[in-house]
Amino acid sequence: MTNLYELAEIAGNKLISNEIVDIDTINSLKNFISDGGFIGLSQINPIAGNIEYNAKKIAQHIKFAESIGLETVIFPELALMGYPIEDTIDRHPIIVEENIKWLNGLAKITKTTIALVGFVEPRKNDKGKKYYNSVAIMQNGKIQGIIRKSLLPTYSEFNDYRYVEPSLLAGVQDVKTIETGNCVQSSSKLYNGYAITICEDCWNDSDFFDRAIYSTDPIETLAKENPKLFINCSASPTRAKKEQLKHNMLSFIASKYKTPFVYVNQVGAIDNNSFDGASRVYNKDGKLIARAKSFEEQFLIVNPYKNIGKIYPLTKGLDKSLTEQKIFTLEYESDLERTYKTIIQGIRDYFKKCGFKRAVLGLSGGLDSTVCAVLMADAIGKENVFGISMPSHITSKESKSDAELLARNLGINFTEAPIRSMIDTTAECLNNLFMNIETKWGKYYDKECGTFTNEPNNIYSSFTQDNIQARSRAMFLWGISNEFSSCIPIATSDKSELYMGYATINGDMSGGFAPIADVPKTKLFAFARWLNANRDEKNAIPEAIILKKPGAELAIDPKTGKPLIAEDALMPYEFLDEIIWRIENKNESYNDFLDIEFVYEKRNHVSKKQKIEWLDKFYRRMSTALYKWSILPPSVIVEARSINKYDYRQPITSSGINYKGSAKEYIDSILN
Amino acid sequence: MTNLYELAEIAGNKLISNEIVDIDTINSLKNFISDGGFIGLSQINPIAGNIEYNAKKIAQHIKFAESIGLETVIFPELALMGYPIEDTIDRHPIIVEENIKWLNGLAKITKTTIALVGFVEPRKNDKGKKYYNSVAIMQNGKIQGIIRKSLLPTYSEFNDYRYVEPSLLAGVQDVKTIETGNCVQSSSKLYNGYAITICEDCWNDSDFFDRAIYSTDPIETLAKENPKLFINCSASPTRAKKEQLKHNMLSFIASKYKTPFVYVNQVGAIDNNSFDGASRVYNKDGKLIARAKSFEEQFLIVNPYKNIGKIYPLTKGLDKSLTEQKIFTLEYESDLERTYKTIIQGIRDYFKKCGFKRAVLGLSGGLDSTVCAVLMADAIGKENVFGISMPSHITSKESKSDAELLARNLGINFTEAPIRSMIDTTAECLNNLFMNIETKWGKYYDKECGTFTNEPNNIYSSFTQDNIQARSRAMFLWGISNEFSSCIPIATSDKSELYMGYATINGDMSGGFAPIADVPKTKLFAFARWLNANRDEKNAIPEAIILKKPGAELAIDPKTGKPLIAEDALMPYEFLDEIIWRIENKNESYNDFLDIEFVYEKRNHVSKKQKIEWLDKFYRRMSTALYKWSILPPSVIVEARSINKYDYRQPITSSGINYKGSAKEYIDSILN
Repeated sequence: MTNLYELAEIAGNKLISNEIVDIDTINSLKNFISDGGFIGLSQINPIAGNIEYNAKKIAQHIKFAESIGLETVIFPELALMGYPIEDTIDRHPIIVEENIKWLNGLAKITKTTIALVGFVEPRKNDKGKKYYNSVAIMQNGKIQGIIRKSLLPTYSEFNDYRYVEPSLLAGVQDVKTIETGNCVQSSSKLYNGYAITICEDCWNDSDFFDRAIYSTDPIETLAKENPKLFINCSASPTRAKKEQLKHNMLSFIASKYKTPFVYVNQVGAIDNNSFDGASRVYNKDGKLIARAKSFEEQFLIVNPYKNIGKIYPLTKGLDKSLTEQKIFTLEYESDLERTYKTIIQGIRDYFKKCGFKRAVLGLSGGLDSTVCAVLMADAIGKENVFGISMPSHITSKESKSDAELLARNLGINFTEAPIRSMIDTTAECLNNLFMNIETKWGKYYDKECGTFTNEPNNIYSSFTQDNIQARSRAMFLWGISNEFSSCIPIATSDKSELYMGYATINGDMSGGFAPIADVPKTKLFAFARWLNANRDEKNAIPEAIILKKPGAELAIDPKTGKPLIAEDALMPYEFLDEIIWRIENKNESYNDFLDIEFVYEKRNHVSKKQKIEWLDKFYRRMSTALYKWSILPPSVIVEARSINKYDYRQPITSSGINYKGSAKEYIDSILN
Repeated sequence: MTNLYELAEIAGNKLISNEIVDIDTINSLKNFISDGGFIGLSQINPIAGNIEYNAKKIAQHIKFAESIGLETVIFPELALMGYPIEDTIDRHPIIVEENIKWLNGLAKITKTTIALVGFVEPRKNDKGKKYYNSVAIMQNGKIQGIIRKSLLPTYSEFNDYRYVEPSLLAGVQDVKTIETGNCVQSSSKLYNGYAITICEDCWNDSDFFDRAIYSTDPIETLAKENPKLFINCSASPTRAKKEQLKHNMLSFIASKYKTPFVYVNQVGAIDNNSFDGASRVYNKDGKLIARAKSFEEQFLIVNPYKNIGKIYPLTKGLDKSLTEQKIFTLEYESDLERTYKTIIQGIRDYFKKCGFKRAVLGLSGGLDSTVCAVLMADAIGKENVFGISMPSHITSKESKSDAELLARNLGINFTEAPIRSMIDTTAECLNNLFMNIETKWGKYYDKECGTFTNEPNNIYSSFTQDNIQARSRAMFLWGISNEFSSCIPIATSDKSELYMGYATINGDMSGGFAPIADVPKTKLFAFARWLNANRDEKNAIPEAIILKKPGAELAIDPKTGKPLIAEDALMPYEFLDEIIWRIENKNESYNDFLDIEFVYEKRNHVSKKQKIEWLDKFYRRMSTALYKWSILPPSVIVEARSINKYDYRQPITSSGINYKGSAKEYIDSILN
């Protein structure tokens, strides 16, 4: 015999795939929930600004909710618009007009079931920003009241306050004020006993947080009205360590106020933001009683008053992640499933929402391109991925065969394209050109004289020849993108190398999407093993690729006669990744690092001199990498902090920052 | 006999170039201003985050001010840090610690002259953001009080609220609260009778603006204290139409409150922001009595109480610009000097602050690369610019000779690098590769079947061959950049073509800086003529280049047998630029455009059908150009609005936005 959740899943799946839910299923569901108090959590994946697409989806969910007799159906924050929409609404106000038109249409189709639908509300006042971030409470064919977001995040990926005015009031506001945009409370702050808030509005409990960012707490205000239920409409992207915090906070609030809490989150990716869904319900004791799937659309039916709900398993890593650990240990295992799903969703939605269908990437036989190939195959389908091996004279036989084996294991398309003749012709053309230029310009900068000279005055290694290889490969990939419809090249740069500027502009850094730009190299090794163990096709990644020391295979090490290893040019990845992790997660700086014993240092007896050399190199290279970060292709944020340009912004011209700090005596001597 | 301003200029110039001001000049100046009430406006060009560089400069100015007995010396907003610094201070807190150390050092060197120095103030409270945007009032060796910014802009290029807490109080706050970060008023809101505010704090007069963004007006609050002087420390970048607004507003405030107003602005560029300086003083009747130069560092001495000051000429166009005009007329003349100085400063400071010394660019004989060459020569010196002519089989003889003539006229370095062999080899390699791929992948997308096929099913024009040319050229330029020290390539894309995505990734769009990315094509024509008329060397740009119809010279038009003209692939530039201008300046949309008669339309009797075709093409191409905007190299903002990624942000995945809007009947039929 089927139970409520088997039925709900059948119906929910049809709803998600835009199919009609058959009348038998509807009637059975109706029967199951006929004693009332059931609520639908509509965890949808909207397209930013595509109101029609979003509205049609919302309409189907409202009709379904009505058909089975739900008390209420709840959508995520800005469901009609998609979150974030950012400056788009300011430059193209037609989109806001559209969202109002469709909102009014949606209100008309509501009957007894209450629908909570997020939208962008234009304000007509003469003060403040032009919009609110609002939720319409709809019932009986009309908008009955408005909730407006009060707490507007403006950190990391969030920019709400750029276009949204904070609401001065918590709870339900008079629907007539849509005309004016003033804040006027409705006769009650609650609607049907619900205390409704929007996303950040529930993130300011001063008992829970050490440091509350905002001066008001809408939850606290609404709790005084004795609500029967808290509802929060949210659009909260996944980041390392966030789920545990979120769970603890929501559970804390529910039990603090002895009130059940329904939290509905957006799912899907919008550019760099990958939203994890996992909408959930806590009962009045703060106990989790229901949770939707992570990284999937779902229509979840719950009864928060009677503890009826189903808890779908949480993607591993959402609840526990590296950043929880006090010390950097390079143990990434607990976070790898989350990493995988975050990136897969990021790629899939970028392609779908932009209309791309196929991808091409260079397969070097190295770790970066290998992991990218696996992710692309899983995200858009192996038949839609073309791996190109582009060996040069430096490429080892092993790299070539590893790449081919990988492609065969994955079942993606594969071909080899020798780039030798192109590199040779380019190099020849360039050498002729360089000779011409040398007659007028010196190659080397003489710091003492402040002039340029053709006399090498220091050990100078030119990357010109190496980069010709990387750029020739990108030229091939973009050529394929031009020639074959709906196909984009993949940029394979990883986070560690981006921090070091160890990526070639118009080379490996170039592409239509950069899947692993927020994954550090040491994590990629663990990730490769995880992929081998956890994908349906086991061990798709040849062991040799994982064991090999990373190197771009662009130049030969004169000492060994073998291709140069990246760690020789940079520093050990374990050391590098710990610096990055500490800066991003601990706000530590150069001087702190001198006092901290790094894991790599401990394991390998690194000398103080060597450590300082690496630290100096890190800050020097990072300073000059800022330009590269600014032109990095779209990528998805994975870690707690990133260098994604829409998440972190540092002026490129902030050269000469002294990351070590000046001594007080030096300052005094200079100024006095 | 020398007067005050001749002397002040001699001293100021020495100060700006870090030379010692001789004792005779100091004594003469001292004599001139011995009756008191003189104030120094220190219009400096800081480097973001380079505290030491900024502090040394500030120290010199303070010492000079003291030496001649000024009442006060005033620096711009965040003078010690540079504005904007954005997320840098959050990720690298050491920089904030540094700015406090140096601030304390600077305070110690003050004597009787008051110094107002902007800095980032960390807050220790448990609520709110971590920093204030503050000004320290220093005198007699100590910080005497603090001003904290209240109104925090978060639109366009501004992101203050990301990291700064707004001050709840206007005027002087107790210096002891530096320890806590609380807002506690000092015994008086004024210091020495000054009402001091920071930048945006003076931009909210509800009598002046139709729409006040913020709910408080610090100027109004402070005016009640009967100040003898308003002082505003600012960092306000130039944008079209801004100067006129600023002048009117400051003059209005001074006369409204019958109080003189001293406004000190930052100068120099920090990434995309080009600050115009032009610090100034209004007397109590709102009359301008002094103004510093635009786009140059200066130390200006004034007596606001006695109307003593000098008004340096304003860069033309700062006061009057296109956007003032009700109708788009393509008459750009009034804005060209401002455009020139904005970009020159943008280039110069980007190079200087990043440590680059030389630039290389491709000279095609077209308008874009020509204007870029002129700007680069003027910004970094002709000897530091290398123009490379890279003709392909499609390049006309005229283009080649035009490019060479231009280089000769400008005196920049020049050479020719034929790319034919490289293009041929690349094309051959690619064609082999394409044949391999075609066995597995169809080239063309069949919309009806949703599959790919190698049977051309519609008129499909491949840009592959064309783009090989553009990318080969970029490969040469980046090769030179790798081989020759401190040299970066220049991206030559213009604003009109970027809007249309008519720029090749890894081709003409690629480079270390994009000088004309915010200049529309029609303005470039006027700009070229202006450059010919206004530079010391007249007519450097050959007339043929200005007369020629723009085209990338990447493909041959089969109809004419001549290189394709860009307007044929796009639409007439006059029409295109009017769409862009209307969207950016008027917030108009597709439906508005149907009702508006465009200037080009009027002049050329365009049919309704043709107009609709162009409008559809515009929105279709713009939607798919969003990706290109996100990877555009650093550029300087020129117009009132731009597509610079740090000024305007639209999700790339916002595909399927309906810029025409849906009809109400359609919505009803879909939802019901």
